[in-house]
Amino acid sequence: MAPISSHPAAASRIAGLIVAGALLAGTLAHAADAPRPTLSATDVLAQSAPSAWRPVDPENTLYLELATGRVVMELAPAFAPRHVANLKTLVREKYFDGLSIVRAMDDYVVEWEDSEGKRPTQSAATTLPPEFFGDVRAEQPFLRLPDGDVYAPEVGFSGGYPVARDPKTHTRWLTHCYGMLGLGRDNDPTSGFGGSPFVVIGQTRNLDRNDTLIGRVVHGIDLLSTLPRGTGPLGFYEKREQHVPIRSMKVAADVPVAERTEVEVLRTDTPTFLAYVEARRSPPLGWYVQPAGHVDVCTVRVAARLRPKGPVPAAK
Amino acid sequence: MAPISSHPAAASRIAGLIVAGALLAGTLAHAADAPRPTLSATDVLAQSAPSAWRPVDPENTLYLELATGRVVMELAPAFAPRHVANLKTLVREKYFDGLSIVRAMDDYVVEWEDSEGKRPTQSAATTLPPEFFGDVRAEQPFLRLPDGDVYAPEVGFSGGYPVARDPKTHTRWLTHCYGMLGLGRDNDPTSGFGGSPFVVIGQTRNLDRNDTLIGRVVHGIDLLSTLPRGTGPLGFYEKREQHVPIRSMKVAADVPVAERTEVEVLRTDTPTFLAYVEARRSPPLGWYVQPAGHVDVCTVRVAARLRPKGPVPAAK
Repeated sequence: MAPISSHPAAASRIAGLIVAGALLAGTLAHAADAPRPTLSATDVLAQSAPSAWRPVDPENTLYLELATGRVVMELAPAFAPRHVANLKTLVREKYFDGLSIVRAMDDYVVEWEDSEGKRPTQSAATTLPPEFFGDVRAEQPFLRLPDGDVYAPEVGFSGGYPVARDPKTHTRWLTHCYGMLGLGRDNDPTSGFGGSPFVVIGQTRNLDRNDTLIGRVVHGIDLLSTLPRGTGPLGFYEKREQHVPIRSMKVAADVPVAERTEVEVLRTDTPTFLAYVEARRSPPLGWYVQPAGHVDVCTVRVAARLRPKGPVPAAK
Repeated sequence: MAPISSHPAAASRIAGLIVAGALLAGTLAHAADAPRPTLSATDVLAQSAPSAWRPVDPENTLYLELATGRVVMELAPAFAPRHVANLKTLVREKYFDGLSIVRAMDDYVVEWEDSEGKRPTQSAATTLPPEFFGDVRAEQPFLRLPDGDVYAPEVGFSGGYPVARDPKTHTRWLTHCYGMLGLGRDNDPTSGFGGSPFVVIGQTRNLDRNDTLIGRVVHGIDLLSTLPRGTGPLGFYEKREQHVPIRSMKVAADVPVAERTEVEVLRTDTPTFLAYVEARRSPPLGWYVQPAGHVDVCTVRVAARLRPKGPVPAAK
């Protein structure tokens, strides 16, 4: 493991500094003359209190079961309620069981669907009004990054997700960062009903506001990111035998407790998260000779981990 | 293949518009009210003239030979002359033959080295003054992107590579974009002599100016990006048997012509490249309903391809 800092005062100093300067103001401000953090991002996580994490909700967690293991995805109903509900309906209809991953485009996405277009849906909709973006809502706290962004006027975090906003239109949307789960579509914007889920395995911010993102992989993304790349256009596999079989998709709540993968996600509304972002922005002295001083919203990488064994602590 | 645009006038219109507005000024300006391109990036490449491409120089091309195939890397001596020379010396000493890939960190880097630290160098240096950045030079044309950047005051392209610049210090450096080849080091900044090459397989711009980048993978990156991820800290493989053997590394010029992999790279100083960037920034009408209007320097992805069969055209 990376060495844990031996300076216990550091965490409280960093947390205090950032809370005073930024958290209360709702913005993750970066003071250019702030002292360099003494904790790395790894240290911040290692020293974090249990209350800095939240378990994922089994009712909003999907499992993608492959021969190589399980990919765990957290859903974001606050951002795409219709699409989340429809995808869960598809999953519960066993729509994906026995289908395949049909596309793996390097530095882009992995996607699965009914490549033969023969599988009927039962109660799930096959068209849906797009949820590519939505209105800013007061009940969704937004922690803005002051680091700037190439693609959007504002970026930051909300409810554990990377989010962009446009203050002129009062809209917000999930950003296509590594690990995000989206729903592929044809040219018709209403065609992204959920039959072609994809996971981002590269840099795809150009897709922002062009399809509906509905969540994020929180465990097992390497089972997708290491798949052989498709050699056809857009990374589709050219031969049927290259397809990667899907055993099943499941809603975690439908799986017996003993068979679940218990994942927790770093909360994005705590001093711990602020210290984590600051460590990403300006790592401690040591290996780094030229700290970036800035961080890209996608490079923050909201941490997720298997939940430590033992009783779940009471929230503080 | 993706459909080729049936509007032959488009290419000349785009090229003309951008050349008039930007190329002559040395900046890739984006007019907000410019008409949407009618060519996709794929179309631009498909319609490109042979002169829009340049072959890689065999003397500055490395092959990494794995059981799964060959990774081709172009070197950038204009940016890191000492490190390029030293790595070539190491390659020609057969320093890497029989070593292994020892690290594959998801969304970050793949790295190879002598994990046992027993292999001696012959004439190659084992410490080198860092070439993390260098002075801006008039003889290195720089095509600046007007899209902004989170990490650097200026970004763009020079000699086929993504580059950042700081006009205050008159310095420039290669950026840690997907596919870039760098030299790992210990805490000592002079320790990156070439014994631990790495390739970027994720988002690592935080490393800019902290190590020496010396080139880019131009063919076969999927052989690296699909490797199983290491489960140890920083993505190192935890067991010796997980290491991925390297058959050899070679300078392409040392390989018989018939056994070479002939690669060519899209030139970054032509109207074709400008049209390519513009198509990345604002794709044609069709699937995209909300073109980004901006492009990240790493998302441009300077195209490389196997050289078409037939005589090499004379430069125009």
